[in-house]
Amino acid sequence: MVNFSPGPSQLYFTAEDHTRSAFKLGVPSMSHRSSAFEAIYQHTQEQLRALLSIPKTHHIFFTSSATEIWERLIQNLVIEKSAHFVNGAFSEKFYKAAKQLHKQAQEIRVPDGIGFSQPIKLDVELIGVTHNETSTGVALPKSFIYGLKEQNPEALLCVDAVSSLPYVDFDYGKVDSVYFSVQKGFGLPPGLGVWIVNEACIARAESLLAKGFSIGTHHTLPFYLKNGIKNQTPETPNSVAIYVLGKVAEDMVRRGINTIRKETEYKAVILYNELMQHGSLSPFVKEKIYQSPTVIIAESGNQTEKLSQFLLEKGIIAGEGYGVHGGTQLRFANFPAHSREQYELLVDYIKAFQ
Amino acid sequence: MVNFSPGPSQLYFTAEDHTRSAFKLGVPSMSHRSSAFEAIYQHTQEQLRALLSIPKTHHIFFTSSATEIWERLIQNLVIEKSAHFVNGAFSEKFYKAAKQLHKQAQEIRVPDGIGFSQPIKLDVELIGVTHNETSTGVALPKSFIYGLKEQNPEALLCVDAVSSLPYVDFDYGKVDSVYFSVQKGFGLPPGLGVWIVNEACIARAESLLAKGFSIGTHHTLPFYLKNGIKNQTPETPNSVAIYVLGKVAEDMVRRGINTIRKETEYKAVILYNELMQHGSLSPFVKEKIYQSPTVIIAESGNQTEKLSQFLLEKGIIAGEGYGVHGGTQLRFANFPAHSREQYELLVDYIKAFQ
Repeated sequence: MVNFSPGPSQLYFTAEDHTRSAFKLGVPSMSHRSSAFEAIYQHTQEQLRALLSIPKTHHIFFTSSATEIWERLIQNLVIEKSAHFVNGAFSEKFYKAAKQLHKQAQEIRVPDGIGFSQPIKLDVELIGVTHNETSTGVALPKSFIYGLKEQNPEALLCVDAVSSLPYVDFDYGKVDSVYFSVQKGFGLPPGLGVWIVNEACIARAESLLAKGFSIGTHHTLPFYLKNGIKNQTPETPNSVAIYVLGKVAEDMVRRGINTIRKETEYKAVILYNELMQHGSLSPFVKEKIYQSPTVIIAESGNQTEKLSQFLLEKGIIAGEGYGVHGGTQLRFANFPAHSREQYELLVDYIKAFQ
Repeated sequence: MVNFSPGPSQLYFTAEDHTRSAFKLGVPSMSHRSSAFEAIYQHTQEQLRALLSIPKTHHIFFTSSATEIWERLIQNLVIEKSAHFVNGAFSEKFYKAAKQLHKQAQEIRVPDGIGFSQPIKLDVELIGVTHNETSTGVALPKSFIYGLKEQNPEALLCVDAVSSLPYVDFDYGKVDSVYFSVQKGFGLPPGLGVWIVNEACIARAESLLAKGFSIGTHHTLPFYLKNGIKNQTPETPNSVAIYVLGKVAEDMVRRGINTIRKETEYKAVILYNELMQHGSLSPFVKEKIYQSPTVIIAESGNQTEKLSQFLLEKGIIAGEGYGVHGGTQLRFANFPAHSREQYELLVDYIKAFQ
């Protein structure tokens, strides 16, 4: 069985072996204040930096999920106002989290299946933007994201890259925070979020604290930093996941991020081409600039159940359409764990499906 | 090597095998909205209820750590005032979390090495009490904890049982919330907290919401409940840990909780007896009513480093003294993963140490 659901998704080829090694090395019983754990933490940081070209101006912290990061971003960085570009269920959840934390959250919304291309000026402290909407298969142009920062130099620009990393090659100098969870593009079991922040985010959190605002307890940026400079975490962490993430990132570095990116693009092209030519299917996202390379959605209408079953018989798990699209769409993750061969086979099966 | 450190501690005998099974069963790639995951969630709930005799009046929810639970307790249950019985580093952390969240937090403090036995009346919404202080090896009498509830029926009584479950047999009808993390008595890798709450906690959180207070985003009690009744979690969880916890709890049910409790008491007695008779060591906790059966601390003074090394050569990892006690104490966890034979060996080695 190959799992094309966008997350939790297919495990990366080496994830299970590295988990086994973690047990052999005693990682589960290791003190998170020991030098052995510090070495693991440091290794994972270094491999993520190497893989994604994260500069020294940005810190990398670990949470339990990307969902948690939405909450932490608002708590740490916003006194009053945030703005959220909403074009699907996940970008909406971040917006709603800000509302739940009683912020004046502004929603800039377009319908499912399209994105944003014109940066605008906003009077807010934080801008939330979803590079890749897992629910709708829409990727935003990087030029739009960088343009937002240019137009809003005072706002902290926070980019949800949950289902586009490690594919997307951000210029981290042009964004303040980027975050993801490990059960998508990295092909790990769920239970770990990765939160990348620059010095401006740290400074903002410190200024909120200095002004007397509560920014949380153990997962505040100043406390992350205090522990992070010792290669430690604020609390006893999911240490096995931190270990496995470092080893998988190392494997990806060895494979070559350019190779991974080219393969991702190849796989995306062959599936989109097939969907465009297909008699009874089409890509849900029509505009090429918004078509996500990493989460590809087929508009399958009343053929949905039949196609899903057809693929299942071939050993392929397709992701269900998200929410209201459950009965009319299928989602296909295109992550590093999905090989060229598996994608070619998937496309052949879809072609054969009438 | 046997790890007697109180956490992360020795893995339970079956934890690694169950982790391997989780991968074989595809748990890491399973959708957390699928019926397959719901069955796992339900199984874990049922086994925890069976093992700990948790009544239907109490719900069981999953967080990333017990540290997170301190934050969630305050966010969900307190408008203004909480009180914290502080007798070590971990009870103090909960108190500090309440302060960080800008509550009028009251600290009732005794020195390290002793506990509390006289319940008092308090004018607060929440009372935090640490059944077993992992940093000092002090366990509080259950009669004190139940007495607190009797004297303060309006306050929600929240009990930290991080390093005493599954040993301690609470009458859950007499407490409002109990919580623990899995890397101690349950012998799992870290990365999961377990939060037990009764209907009064749910009602309190709902009343805070109704009054217009912010109680958080994804880890609010009403949202936990909404998902929990479907056997689901608010966000993509550490599904492997939830699976393994259920299987380990099932193993413990099969072994018999009474057997586990009797063995724990036997192991505690032989170690405390040895420490009391020893020429150069003594129990840090002097008063018998406060001597924790599950975290036993040796006052080892200037012999500390030598004893630690001596044990290490025998294949035994002793836990370091916590914080300021680092150079003068050693801590020994007495969890279900530590067998009678290992404990007898530990005691023999300590006896042989001069």
